Amino acid sequence: MNLRELWADQQPTFGAWLSVASTASAEATARVGFDYVCADNQHGAMDYQATVGIVQGVLLGGSRPIARVPWNEPGIIGKMLDAGAEGVVVPMVNTVAEAEAVVRACRYPPLGARSYGPVLAGIRSGEYAAGANANVAVIPMIETVQALQNIDDILAVPGVDAIYVGPADLSLSLGLAPGNNDDRAEFTEALLTITAACRRAGVVPGIHASGALAERRLQQGFQMITTSADLLAMRTRMGEELAQARGAERPAGSTAIY
Amino acid sequence: MNLRELWADQQPTFGAWLSVASTASAEATARVGFDYVCADNQHGAMDYQATVGIVQGVLLGGSRPIARVPWNEPGIIGKMLDAGAEGVVVPMVNTVAEAEAVVRACRYPPLGARSYGPVLAGIRSGEYAAGANANVAVIPMIETVQALQNIDDILAVPGVDAIYVGPADLSLSLGLAPGNNDDRAEFTEALLTITAACRRAGVVPGIHASGALAERRLQQGFQMITTSADLLAMRTRMGEELAQARGAERPAGSTAIY
Amino acid sequence: MNLRELWADQQPTFGAWLSVASTASAEATARVGFDYVCADNQHGAMDYQATVGIVQGVLLGGSRPIARVPWNEPGIIGKMLDAGAEGVVVPMVNTVAEAEAVVRACRYPPLGARSYGPVLAGIRSGEYAAGANANVAVIPMIETVQALQNIDDILAVPGVDAIYVGPADLSLSLGLAPGNNDDRAEFTEALLTITAACRRAGVVPGIHASGALAERRLQQGFQMITTSADLLAMRTRMGEELAQARGAERPAGSTAIY
Amino acid sequence: MNLRELWADQQPTFGAWLSVASTASAEATARVGFDYVCADNQHGAMDYQATVGIVQGVLLGGSRPIARVPWNEPGIIGKMLDAGAEGVVVPMVNTVAEAEAVVRACRYPPLGARSYGPVLAGIRSGEYAAGANANVAVIPMIETVQALQNIDDILAVPGVDAIYVGPADLSLSLGLAPGNNDDRAEFTEALLTITAACRRAGVVPGIHASGALAERRLQQGFQMITTSADLLAMRTRMGEELAQARGAERPAGSTAIY
Amino acid sequence: MNLRELWADQQPTFGAWLSVASTASAEATARVGFDYVCADNQHGAMDYQATVGIVQGVLLGGSRPIARVPWNEPGIIGKMLDAGAEGVVVPMVNTVAEAEAVVRACRYPPLGARSYGPVLAGIRSGEYAAGANANVAVIPMIETVQALQNIDDILAVPGVDAIYVGPADLSLSLGLAPGNNDDRAEFTEALLTITAACRRAGVVPGIHASGALAERRLQQGFQMITTSADLLAMRTRMGEELAQARGAERPAGSTAIY
Amino acid sequence: MNLRELWADQQPTFGAWLSVASTASAEATARVGFDYVCADNQHGAMDYQATVGIVQGVLLGGSRPIARVPWNEPGIIGKMLDAGAEGVVVPMVNTVAEAEAVVRACRYPPLGARSYGPVLAGIRSGEYAAGANANVAVIPMIETVQALQNIDDILAVPGVDAIYVGPADLSLSLGLAPGNNDDRAEFTEALLTITAACRRAGVVPGIHASGALAERRLQQGFQMITTSADLLAMRTRMGEELAQARGAERPAGSTAIY
Repeated sequence: MNLRELWADQQPTFGAWLSVASTASAEATARVGFDYVCADNQHGAMDYQATVGIVQGVLLGGSRPIARVPWNEPGIIGKMLDAGAEGVVVPMVNTVAEAEAVVRACRYPPLGARSYGPVLAGIRSGEYAAGANANVAVIPMIETVQALQNIDDILAVPGVDAIYVGPADLSLSLGLAPGNNDDRAEFTEALLTITAACRRAGVVPGIHASGALAERRLQQGFQMITTSADLLAMRTRMGEELAQARGAERPAGSTAIY
Repeated sequence: MNLRELWADQQPTFGAWLSVASTASAEATARVGFDYVCADNQHGAMDYQATVGIVQGVLLGGSRPIARVPWNEPGIIGKMLDAGAEGVVVPMVNTVAEAEAVVRACRYPPLGARSYGPVLAGIRSGEYAAGANANVAVIPMIETVQALQNIDDILAVPGVDAIYVGPADLSLSLGLAPGNNDDRAEFTEALLTITAACRRAGVVPGIHASGALAERRLQQGFQMITTSADLLAMRTRMGEELAQARGAERPAGSTAIY
Repeated sequence: MNLRELWADQQPTFGAWLSVASTASAEATARVGFDYVCADNQHGAMDYQATVGIVQGVLLGGSRPIARVPWNEPGIIGKMLDAGAEGVVVPMVNTVAEAEAVVRACRYPPLGARSYGPVLAGIRSGEYAAGANANVAVIPMIETVQALQNIDDILAVPGVDAIYVGPADLSLSLGLAPGNNDDRAEFTEALLTITAACRRAGVVPGIHASGALAERRLQQGFQMITTSADLLAMRTRMGEELAQARGAERPAGSTAIY
Repeated sequence: MNLRELWADQQPTFGAWLSVASTASAEATARVGFDYVCADNQHGAMDYQATVGIVQGVLLGGSRPIARVPWNEPGIIGKMLDAGAEGVVVPMVNTVAEAEAVVRACRYPPLGARSYGPVLAGIRSGEYAAGANANVAVIPMIETVQALQNIDDILAVPGVDAIYVGPADLSLSLGLAPGNNDDRAEFTEALLTITAACRRAGVVPGIHASGALAERRLQQGFQMITTSADLLAMRTRMGEELAQARGAERPAGSTAIY
Repeated sequence: MNLRELWADQQPTFGAWLSVASTASAEATARVGFDYVCADNQHGAMDYQATVGIVQGVLLGGSRPIARVPWNEPGIIGKMLDAGAEGVVVPMVNTVAEAEAVVRACRYPPLGARSYGPVLAGIRSGEYAAGANANVAVIPMIETVQALQNIDDILAVPGVDAIYVGPADLSLSLGLAPGNNDDRAEFTEALLTITAACRRAGVVPGIHASGALAERRLQQGFQMITTSADLLAMRTRMGEELAQARGAERPAGSTAIY
Repeated sequence: MNLRELWADQQPTFGAWLSVASTASAEATARVGFDYVCADNQHGAMDYQATVGIVQGVLLGGSRPIARVPWNEPGIIGKMLDAGAEGVVVPMVNTVAEAEAVVRACRYPPLGARSYGPVLAGIRSGEYAAGANANVAVIPMIETVQALQNIDDILAVPGVDAIYVGPADLSLSLGLAPGNNDDRAEFTEALLTITAACRRAGVVPGIHASGALAERRLQQGFQMITTSADLLAMRTRMGEELAQARGAERPAGSTAIY
């Protein structure tokens, strides 16, 4: 099942975020078992050329590759889809016009104006062209006060399958520090406004989170939840291991021989 | 202080192992606070060209870059040093002749036969040439029964600063499954044989370990202990986060709205 | 002779299309003898950085490098030209304003607003700057019904040297399946509308085709005809060879010894 | 001190320009001692992915990395800043609206609309987010007659820290040959118009120059002066060396033995 | 089934040879349907780092990745296997000692001395370590008169699964022009000597061939037959297409309108 | 004329040395007008994969590409030649056996044992195979006291076309500081010993030098003289420019306005 089918099946989906331009790291991430793995071409240290191999690594690892593009621009959206991304996350979609532009870049005519040429995606399935409009997940980001104000209209744009909340940008727009401000009412309220609007519109709400936040986000109604990011996961674990070793360094009553 | 100075100062040193060919990941690892970060060109998914940038990332991140070479071959050893590696880990050194070859490749005349041309290392210090023979750490790996049998002679080779134990290869050579076989007497005995010989010879014993194993290895006498590896750390943490999320997926009495 | 001179000389020109980010493959393609070789940065699996070397490979191979950009955006058009592309193919040019934007990005003042800095193109000729406006081929794509409706006005934009038809996108826009729909009257009619308008305007009509389609396209009036694409050519030939081998696998009355 | 602090301190700043996509070359350049080193993603043969490593190389080499983007587009501006560029040079800013767009892409809310996610910049400083709006240098280019006409209004846009003059583009816009046309009154007048406006507005004037031109540009009021470019410096010196050798080739009365 | 299982099942196997360092091209080749796809690190324009992604592309494409190494050297053999190559082709194996070295580099103890660390291969199967000695295909090349003279002894080396004939090198060694010299008795005789010895020894004979040669090679007893090479296939097909187009260029009685 | 022909014609040849892994920099260097440009894979920050493009850049720039390999190993020598290097510089050749190994790796049978497969070199000339043994320049390095002692025997090895002196390594071997020690009698004597032996043997003597040293080296009998190195040339010129600018910074009586 692709992402849209998982979502239609009412299944929660958990994913990982990639910032490292490495096909090895991408495959390793996919093999952890995520429902989707996103090649972050906005804030991650990667670009299109790296993403070509990352998509291969994610597919080989048995997950579903999606990509975040640097900006709402049809050229790069098309390139990501042609490389085989099964969904595109587009930052800073604040208006109906911007949401329509996203859809237009993701769908072949007559639903949109995506240019035809799935050089890699097309060799993986003889039926890519026929299925692309139904299979590709279109995921604008909702991460500003302006987007919140326009939320119902944005969600009503035909072709928007899911939205994705960037908590840091949303917080900045709300006048908060970047991050997850769950202790601030306006933050939580914004999230609930989004999931409620999504439920009304039949659009899947997604959000950048963590393993620890997953349960809360599920209960807030999110169905697409990113629990992990490559560099952060690596550094967190390394920090724990190093602390454990340094803590062991001079154990009380140690008879260490060095 | 460089690695040799830390060791002379009787300090334990903890490091990380890199398999991902990414300068971003390398810098991120270094910033965790490791005493050394090793670009693994033997089993890691990287080669010399990637290592050039990885060394830069590790230095920028404030740690000490070392490299493991694919094999005991003077060409690649020289390239790693010229790129700025402050130590070289050389696999499968089983005999005195092989240990002498390692030293020869790492030291300028008259101590060895390293070829002169520190194109990158040299721009970082006007005194690279004068100091290299004293600053570069020469680290053959001890990881076979044959090496154990020759251990005192290998450690007596002038210029060997440290040795590094590969527990998986050592285990295979001992007829055990690859890994840390701390519950097997012959494995533990081999480690203690090595650290005892090192103590006698004034050579630093190093080993591939983990955060959890660090205390035991310290007590066994190791002074250079690798606690973390990039892909493994990333996947371990991601697995925990994903499990946490999936566990939360259908909480008892959940009123999740999706 | 450059492309514009070949065209002015009434010569048909045949080219190849590259999707593989390889300077080796690019040179190999050029040496087949094509009049031009296009680095496809829209649907091909390559980007600007790869194109720098591909342009070198094509020039070394004795052909003329051109590039298709991902979208009608002045930044990437300028980069391709600075890298040495002798022409730029720009997708989805549907209006006069869009055609004017293409020209503006390709021509130095006073004919346009291209920014000066031909770092690579300029080292190949001391006279690059003086000749660029005359030598660079500006090639917007005509591939939608909207473009067809505006065809005469688009072709009248000063600085448009040629146009290039994308048959798949044109077909989608016409409500047909993506591909060459020569058996459909509306497709053929669209092509003839384009070549007729080009003839009137003195603009060269180009099209994505194949070896087998070349004769028909010539007769329809096209003067710039792409006959081959790297991945497609490779896979077609490989498929024939593999079929031949598999067919031979169990020859009738075979006494094969395996 | 960062660039903005150096400028506030009234210090002249001298920099280098990089066109070669090499982290080694970047570090080598930084170690020459420049106040800033710019990764030229507009006319240089590099793109974002290369710039990630180049920023690391420049930082390691002890200088301040900045980047020129291909065009005034928020996606690429954000990527450069996230990679750690401490300033962004944006070409062809001709109007107030364009200058406002530059600022918006460079500043977090409420000063702008930069999206949050400093994946690399953020690991270098725990306080990146808090300081970014104060530390990042926003540097639109003034290089057309239109920009000159709007100069006071552009400089009045809040958040513009410096401007950068491209003499070649400015010359083309003035109807001159691309280059430094110091013997032409209109060129000199344009420079003085710019520095005078900058002085009034409290904005730092910068310009692409050379070692030989530095004194004149200082006296004309420029405070950010690029004296060197990688390929040009390399080729100039190589040309001198080769000429010296070829000149020596057949010395008068030579008894050369070849 | 892996290659060794296919061979044990008496099935002929047909493969492709890659010289282009592209994961896209690798996947495209695999999807043609070959039994194996070889990343040629000897004569192809690629090295280890590229092969990491190529192996991923071949696996994703549904074929079996193998690699030819530049030379009989344990470091690079180990790297290829760790990257996931399911077989290694080793050039210029002329003696028993050289064949033993190949096996030693490919098999874990006690069958050989391969170093343990399947960083990528190991994440694809939890049982990689246990199965590697049985699954990896060890394929020395027989391509000189010296190797022919030692053929029975080489084939008797435990662990040699298949051999691979390089017709060009074999021809040079026989004093013939490089290529397939099927019209020369000594060439054909050499091939039959090899297949006969393989049959006696229970070793699979392989050879570099073409689609057209496959039937003959099958009848000569070869069971591993390479029918295609990426650059050659691409250029052959492109040449045909271009010739077809140029032939059509001025058709008799043409009324072409250009 | 290729290098061997230039040398046979008694012409001095001047070259450049590349350490930067950039095809742009390589082409730029070649266009300065050097007789040869060497991709330094020993001490330079590059490897084989980069060299593929560098060879293309040098050829496109109109010069002759050669390569220095990391070590005297047939695999990498073959790869460099297949990529199109027209000569190979091999470090640390101290004995007749080592010199013979170099020749064996560079010449096809019956003159050597180079393996056939000029994937890139061969597409540039239909006659590559026939001419390679005559066209490729075989250039072992003479850079130790041991090599000096064996000089006549090394030069007598059939197939050695030129030798190349590394002054830094030679100095270290002589007990001097690395560099050009022209003020030391033993250094000068060593050079003259080498050129005298070359003259007797009909082998071309080459040396790493500079523009300033070229005349002296010519008079000492060298015929292949490297005058420039990329990073060094770039940094030297940059340093001059920056000094000029900083010197201008506070001119006496300056009325500078910053």
